[in-house]
Amino acid sequence: MRTYRLALLGFGNVGQGLTTILRDHSERIAGQYGAEYRIVAVNTARRGCIYHPEGFDPGQLLSVYSETNRIDTVPAPYAGWDVLRVINESNADVIIDMTSSDLLSGEPAAGYIRAAIAQDRHVVTTNKGPVALHYPELSALAAERGVRLGVEGTVMGGTPVLRVGRDLLAAAGVARIQGILNGTTNYILTRMAEGESYESALAEAQMKGYAEANPAADVDGYDAAIKIVILSNLLLGVPLKLENVEREGIGNLSTKDIVRAQKVGEVWKLVAWVERGPDAVKACVKPMRLSLNHPLAGIAGATNAITFVTQLLGDVTIVGPGAGRVETGYAVLSDLLEIHQHMTR
Amino acid sequence: MRTYRLALLGFGNVGQGLTTILRDHSERIAGQYGAEYRIVAVNTARRGCIYHPEGFDPGQLLSVYSETNRIDTVPAPYAGWDVLRVINESNADVIIDMTSSDLLSGEPAAGYIRAAIAQDRHVVTTNKGPVALHYPELSALAAERGVRLGVEGTVMGGTPVLRVGRDLLAAAGVARIQGILNGTTNYILTRMAEGESYESALAEAQMKGYAEANPAADVDGYDAAIKIVILSNLLLGVPLKLENVEREGIGNLSTKDIVRAQKVGEVWKLVAWVERGPDAVKACVKPMRLSLNHPLAGIAGATNAITFVTQLLGDVTIVGPGAGRVETGYAVLSDLLEIHQHMTR
Repeated sequence: MRTYRLALLGFGNVGQGLTTILRDHSERIAGQYGAEYRIVAVNTARRGCIYHPEGFDPGQLLSVYSETNRIDTVPAPYAGWDVLRVINESNADVIIDMTSSDLLSGEPAAGYIRAAIAQDRHVVTTNKGPVALHYPELSALAAERGVRLGVEGTVMGGTPVLRVGRDLLAAAGVARIQGILNGTTNYILTRMAEGESYESALAEAQMKGYAEANPAADVDGYDAAIKIVILSNLLLGVPLKLENVEREGIGNLSTKDIVRAQKVGEVWKLVAWVERGPDAVKACVKPMRLSLNHPLAGIAGATNAITFVTQLLGDVTIVGPGAGRVETGYAVLSDLLEIHQHMTR
Repeated sequence: MRTYRLALLGFGNVGQGLTTILRDHSERIAGQYGAEYRIVAVNTARRGCIYHPEGFDPGQLLSVYSETNRIDTVPAPYAGWDVLRVINESNADVIIDMTSSDLLSGEPAAGYIRAAIAQDRHVVTTNKGPVALHYPELSALAAERGVRLGVEGTVMGGTPVLRVGRDLLAAAGVARIQGILNGTTNYILTRMAEGESYESALAEAQMKGYAEANPAADVDGYDAAIKIVILSNLLLGVPLKLENVEREGIGNLSTKDIVRAQKVGEVWKLVAWVERGPDAVKACVKPMRLSLNHPLAGIAGATNAITFVTQLLGDVTIVGPGAGRVETGYAVLSDLLEIHQHMTR
């Protein structure tokens, strides 16, 4: 049995999802993989920071946090450390970055990741900004120090599309990747097709916790565009920037448009794609009218899907949850297990 | 660059598909992976057997075979060796079993695999019988000798469902696996929904090379059932035998049944599933009426799909080609690359 000490940066949906998994499934995971995980630090921006070199009880973290809406109400030998002190001075083997960061600069998360790698700590991040903007630099730094950088949670939550693309389909020659990558807009379009107005569908998505408080990143297509940048950088090996992605959101679609499409057996979806061209890649996010037998037409609600168009294997599509507390927590777990497999080779 | 010498047992669709990939994509694969493959032996039951310790030109193998309908018309220093002599005396590093074998005994392929492992050769097989019947024994033998046994091609051709299940979803706790696993019957049902009779849809499937000359293994559900046995043994870790799978084919479905379902927005599919119960697993292959928003309802023609129902991640579905010459050849290539990754760790 090998034990890994974890520092959690952020304790929102993903952090709580991961902690829930560790509370309920540690025994099974230890039996299946011979790996054991201890949360030694939890850092939040506004709800306190705690550190315990021996590790916390995950159940206690969850119950105290839900009762008090703070994390520093959990008894701990050390409290109030800032993120860089946790990275530099704690005994964590893995720094798990679940903070939110600016999509245009990737900061402050990119700085945390650099600092963690410099301390020879493995890093897992669910943070799209630093991966979209700095992946080649960060993965080179990690390789240099002999540590791992896990990024599965940045696209489609726990549905393992990045590893399918990288480990299982790369040899087939991936020529194009297209998908429905944003759960909020897909939920809104699904509800509009059922007769809701845009405004009330958006309000529903916000109530269900899919949409951001400021929904622009979702409805204007930024979130899908940044995921396309990540897919291009990681799976096509072609550096792409957010400004290279042609982008149109769903704001111009009316319920009337959607009903009109339905009458001729078609459906509107916000489709994101990236394609290897003869010289460069082309990438785009925009609403498209799909016929009902299109593989992405049936993807409803907050579900996401990606189709890999390959030379040797034709089209392979993966459909799964694109968000969700435990589902994205699973993305972190799968990166942690990959670190373990790498360390025990 | 590492070179692997390959012995091909069988030169039907899969063997020719693999040879086509090696003819057209060797340079790209060598660049991506640092692995190079040489076909040193080709054995067929009725079209001759050839061996060349230095390797054959894949293009020549394909063109001579297509011109003469024999393989021993390719110039070779040795010819006429039987399978066991190739296994025992050739210089092949990997024995690729693409023979056909009895689904009830797994022979003669299981014997070839045992012999190859005993000679410390890696094995890749696309043969369902030996994997369904003898996987625990064969994988234990391979582990003992320190060689690899690749079986990705036994289910859904090159679509990498076995490795997704084993490497990427096992930690999520797979509780149930269900899918459309037989391309022939799915093609027939798709055409019947378009108005064809059962008989003419079957004739079409045979003409397109999907169905066996004796189509009983497809239409009676044996092929799907044996794939469910493989999925259960490999991914649920529960030994299951063909006779434990409740099985009903599509022979009792009429075009009238199918049209009647369509009128109420439903579709008939031959669905195979296996589920972990409190004490044992339950497994079944039978025609089911699915509503159009069911994730398997839209899987048309010779396409296959599998849904993994997991504890932590909900449903994850993979859709891709279930057959095809190059597509199944890709399954062999992906197993070869896994051997390479294992050897160069």
